[in-house]
Amino acid sequence: MTSSLSVIILAAGKGTRMQSAKPKVLQTLAGKPLLGHVLDTCQQLTVDETIVVYGFGGEQVQTVIDNQYAHLPITWVAQTEQLGTGHAVKMALSQLPAEGQSLILYGDVPLVSGQTLAALQSANTAGMSMLTLTVNEPFGLGRIKRNEIGDIVAIVEQKDASSDEQQITEINSGIYCVDNALLHKYLPELSNDNAQQEYYLTDIVKMAVADGITIAAIEPEHAFEIEGVNNRQQLANLERSWQSKLVADLQVAGVQFADPTRVDIRGSLNAGQDVFIDVNVVFEGDCTLGDNVYIEAGCVIKNAHIGNACYIKPYCVIDNTTIGAGVDIGPFAHLRPDTILADNSKVGNFVEIKKSTIGKGSKVNHLSYIGDATVGTGVNIGAGTITCNYDGINKSQTIIEDNVFVGSNSSLVAPVTINNTATIAAGSVITKDVDAHSLAFGRARQTAKSSYVRPTKTQK
Amino acid sequence: MTSSLSVIILAAGKGTRMQSAKPKVLQTLAGKPLLGHVLDTCQQLTVDETIVVYGFGGEQVQTVIDNQYAHLPITWVAQTEQLGTGHAVKMALSQLPAEGQSLILYGDVPLVSGQTLAALQSANTAGMSMLTLTVNEPFGLGRIKRNEIGDIVAIVEQKDASSDEQQITEINSGIYCVDNALLHKYLPELSNDNAQQEYYLTDIVKMAVADGITIAAIEPEHAFEIEGVNNRQQLANLERSWQSKLVADLQVAGVQFADPTRVDIRGSLNAGQDVFIDVNVVFEGDCTLGDNVYIEAGCVIKNAHIGNACYIKPYCVIDNTTIGAGVDIGPFAHLRPDTILADNSKVGNFVEIKKSTIGKGSKVNHLSYIGDATVGTGVNIGAGTITCNYDGINKSQTIIEDNVFVGSNSSLVAPVTINNTATIAAGSVITKDVDAHSLAFGRARQTAKSSYVRPTKTQK
Amino acid sequence: MTSSLSVIILAAGKGTRMQSAKPKVLQTLAGKPLLGHVLDTCQQLTVDETIVVYGFGGEQVQTVIDNQYAHLPITWVAQTEQLGTGHAVKMALSQLPAEGQSLILYGDVPLVSGQTLAALQSANTAGMSMLTLTVNEPFGLGRIKRNEIGDIVAIVEQKDASSDEQQITEINSGIYCVDNALLHKYLPELSNDNAQQEYYLTDIVKMAVADGITIAAIEPEHAFEIEGVNNRQQLANLERSWQSKLVADLQVAGVQFADPTRVDIRGSLNAGQDVFIDVNVVFEGDCTLGDNVYIEAGCVIKNAHIGNACYIKPYCVIDNTTIGAGVDIGPFAHLRPDTILADNSKVGNFVEIKKSTIGKGSKVNHLSYIGDATVGTGVNIGAGTITCNYDGINKSQTIIEDNVFVGSNSSLVAPVTINNTATIAAGSVITKDVDAHSLAFGRARQTAKSSYVRPTKTQK
Repeated sequence: MTSSLSVIILAAGKGTRMQSAKPKVLQTLAGKPLLGHVLDTCQQLTVDETIVVYGFGGEQVQTVIDNQYAHLPITWVAQTEQLGTGHAVKMALSQLPAEGQSLILYGDVPLVSGQTLAALQSANTAGMSMLTLTVNEPFGLGRIKRNEIGDIVAIVEQKDASSDEQQITEINSGIYCVDNALLHKYLPELSNDNAQQEYYLTDIVKMAVADGITIAAIEPEHAFEIEGVNNRQQLANLERSWQSKLVADLQVAGVQFADPTRVDIRGSLNAGQDVFIDVNVVFEGDCTLGDNVYIEAGCVIKNAHIGNACYIKPYCVIDNTTIGAGVDIGPFAHLRPDTILADNSKVGNFVEIKKSTIGKGSKVNHLSYIGDATVGTGVNIGAGTITCNYDGINKSQTIIEDNVFVGSNSSLVAPVTINNTATIAAGSVITKDVDAHSLAFGRARQTAKSSYVRPTKTQK
Repeated sequence: MTSSLSVIILAAGKGTRMQSAKPKVLQTLAGKPLLGHVLDTCQQLTVDETIVVYGFGGEQVQTVIDNQYAHLPITWVAQTEQLGTGHAVKMALSQLPAEGQSLILYGDVPLVSGQTLAALQSANTAGMSMLTLTVNEPFGLGRIKRNEIGDIVAIVEQKDASSDEQQITEINSGIYCVDNALLHKYLPELSNDNAQQEYYLTDIVKMAVADGITIAAIEPEHAFEIEGVNNRQQLANLERSWQSKLVADLQVAGVQFADPTRVDIRGSLNAGQDVFIDVNVVFEGDCTLGDNVYIEAGCVIKNAHIGNACYIKPYCVIDNTTIGAGVDIGPFAHLRPDTILADNSKVGNFVEIKKSTIGKGSKVNHLSYIGDATVGTGVNIGAGTITCNYDGINKSQTIIEDNVFVGSNSSLVAPVTINNTATIAAGSVITKDVDAHSLAFGRARQTAKSSYVRPTKTQK
Repeated sequence: MTSSLSVIILAAGKGTRMQSAKPKVLQTLAGKPLLGHVLDTCQQLTVDETIVVYGFGGEQVQTVIDNQYAHLPITWVAQTEQLGTGHAVKMALSQLPAEGQSLILYGDVPLVSGQTLAALQSANTAGMSMLTLTVNEPFGLGRIKRNEIGDIVAIVEQKDASSDEQQITEINSGIYCVDNALLHKYLPELSNDNAQQEYYLTDIVKMAVADGITIAAIEPEHAFEIEGVNNRQQLANLERSWQSKLVADLQVAGVQFADPTRVDIRGSLNAGQDVFIDVNVVFEGDCTLGDNVYIEAGCVIKNAHIGNACYIKPYCVIDNTTIGAGVDIGPFAHLRPDTILADNSKVGNFVEIKKSTIGKGSKVNHLSYIGDATVGTGVNIGAGTITCNYDGINKSQTIIEDNVFVGSNSSLVAPVTINNTATIAAGSVITKDVDAHSLAFGRARQTAKSSYVRPTKTQK
């Protein structure tokens, strides 16, 4: 098929049962708005036009989505009255080419796969294809009625189903691929002559059948692909289905999870060979892990690139950080954005690093704050070291050259440079640059008072 | 019904299979003794008298419960011999009014709901009502035998059940509401002429039937309401059932949970609109969350009140703290009792705060200990700041007025006041009050020794 | 049976679907190689010889296992070609005594229990016994065909099974106990005249039947005992089965788990009475907990011995540490190897301790690093105290005697001794020994500059 492909996403629902100030399609699954999932999936196809039909909270929807998907041209179409799915698609007609075909998707059915949509598109050779699913418990869902040779002849709603029809287990997902010519023909003909006084999109099926069109049907690989979100429980269930799928895919690729039900991947995770991920690790954004990376319990890792053979101990929080090979981190390390850790460096417990580079083999092992700093190779930063990078108004840089030894409990008042192989005595406050190979002090001499009597208990 | 309501709670069991030094009714579910759950639930009704029949570990039970429920008058009745449930209730007769009705409950059946008990009480119009449940697997449980018009005629124990009776799926919970007059009449008539030589409370059913009383029966909403605890597995199962129910209720109210099976609520949680709760958060005591509160993974929050739009990053431990609106906390912050954080303040990583107030917009971002302090508005507390509030004997106060800037790695030796808009130089030890708008130093001048040669490796 | 017992473990498989650089039997379950589980289990029996048949990655297998099981004499036998299970066992024949019996086990079936193996050995009175299992879904598995009097007559593979045979639900585990005489007789007779051209170990069953031997069969207590590992999902499932079993055993022994599905025990855990373990705790190595130990959420505990009535708050990481009775720890404490905490001592938040002893009743409550130190009884270590134990080359000792008070933010530059009942003023750098009962200072005098004007914003 070389015809153009449009995507029409219905995104007008309020989602009353979410009990939220946000329109439903902005609710998040795996950290991303429901509508964003659909938009991202469509980018796996060659889409010529993306039309989103908005309604409740439309301005909010457009603001959030246009912000997050600025690269994606979206045609926004308003559905000011909520008169049914057929009405919603009809709103898009004026934006729809006469030729080509359209995928009809839903902003609150977030997990349909690109593979499924491609198959649905391919299946549309006669004018219309639809996504159906065979389920164990079809009660309440629209059944796919087929004739004796297996052709689809109707969609029968629960309330209209005969007792035979109620036995049908193939159900309608509401997702279609339809030639635009048919949409232009059928949608204006839809009637709202029914109990709900709504225009039903499903009526295009009987119109197509009446026109002698053989409707193709395919089923998705996973049931969750056609599940919608109407309340918090459904959202949570879909979240867990999605997490299970992501984990299963990574297991097939060779990742070892201590507990596949206790990990969250909110974005993309690429992992090398022989990666171990312990319980309750959370990934966000785009993360890559090299070979033999070992991540212990409870780490929260966002937009991080972690090299081969890194060992991340429990409860590290890592955000927008680039980590070389053979790096040991944690437990309880907090790496904030724009941190770079070179190969074989080491960051220990209760250490915070932000906007800093730590050179090869350098160590920041204990209770330190390193901010706006450039640390060379072979440096040892003692316990309790703090880069005083902020004077209340400006942030300043600290430069620590190769092979420097910073004694414990030192304060490095930026801007300041500690030149190579210098030594800072423990407990020093360093306010001026330190020469290479020198020893800098900034602390008082020890004195004593003998036979000291401690304070006594204050009367209250 | 305006008749008085008594509650009789049987709490005499040892719970041998718990393998515990504590009597069974003191085992905890969701952080509260089993018996405490029953007592709390009864307070949803209008109860005139609460009688607890104790036995094993009775002194321990009375001590713990009287301590935690000092506001609740409990009539303690001893059951010195364990001669069955009928015998246990008989022990309470001397304390029971002649008129009115009684709920008969169990200290090891903790999760019966107030709604169920109210319905049970309402159902008792003819002298006796009982709580039953239709289950899939009734084997081993007492069956509710009804006649052709549906009236209860007997409770049939498993060992006595005919093959027809074994098909009955409605089972006895052991929970009743009975007119006191009937209890006074029937209990003295109970016989222990059976294999176990025990007095069975269930025998009052056949006595009532013999008296021509139509016994009302209702079923609880949740099966777990009638489940008892005899071993650690049952306790854990019931804990999880309870947690699922609490989470489901909050989902209906609009709270988004990343994983409904990975959250624990041990007490009450009130949440506003559009609250997000990430995996493995634990709530204890009474907590309230405003609108748009976002709580990330692994936080442990106890008796805290958290205002609108607060953002709690991973792994914060918060205890008896009041937090305003728009406050950012964590990761790895520890807020101890009597901490107050005003609107838009910020507490960062590896920070401990106790018995202190942090003013509007003030920041304690890194590696600090703030204890017994009052911090004004617009204050910046540098990394590594420590309030030295303890001299080994007494605790003293630190006052930091508005717009103060405390340089990093400072020690504030209490009692001390830093007056408004003062600045503390990094690395200072401050032992005396600091004037407003002044700059205080308490650190040594930096010196250096050039061409310093580092120590050599000690021979071992 | 007093005959000798050999164990033959087949460990030659690659495990292609693991997508790993490691041979399959070195994949870890509960932190231990699969083969290690089998070796450890065999040590519950009296084994005269352990033969491991290696193949893929044999050198790696031998290196890892010989290193971890140096105490265990293992006879390594190579299977250079992968010609089936029968062939693999045949490789071991040259090492097998003529007399006695052999257990035939698999390096990728890690969780067979010692109890099951002992029963299997005991059952072998006529020459051969085998482990079978009755399952719900036998499809694809070898069925145990028995004659009318219940004797085993054959193992029927799925592809050869008649429709009657397909109904059989007793399946073959592949685990046998066989007299060595029979192995010496049968294995050389095995044929590879089949579709796969492999030598099947199962053929020894029909040979024994042909010899008129009555084959004994027993079933394991748990289905997971005979489950093998071929991919990451199976490994993860088996991990969770194993964890469930360990937790269930501890529940029977009286341990209370907040959530039995959220705990990991990778090694052995011995717990006293009335121990509570909150969600997401991870145990590694050999751990012992006294009575009334309370462990809160997310602690990671390895090779630790924790005394009675200790209270471990959330998110402590404890490694190779010995802890007395009544010790309070955390939250966010990191105890590293060779730490000893005496009775009633206390370690608070953001504290790291390594290779140190903390005496009775002593406290290290906040933001401290204590390394290579000996701390006496009744000592108070103030917030932010750091033992400067490393000069970049050597590690040195810090001695803090009884009843010392170390003021906050102090740096103790080792080697140094603080003699008994001395006091260190807050913010001091201590480089020389401090006399008993004296007060030591090492800090600058406070000065001030009035009407200080803060820096202005730098133009960028």
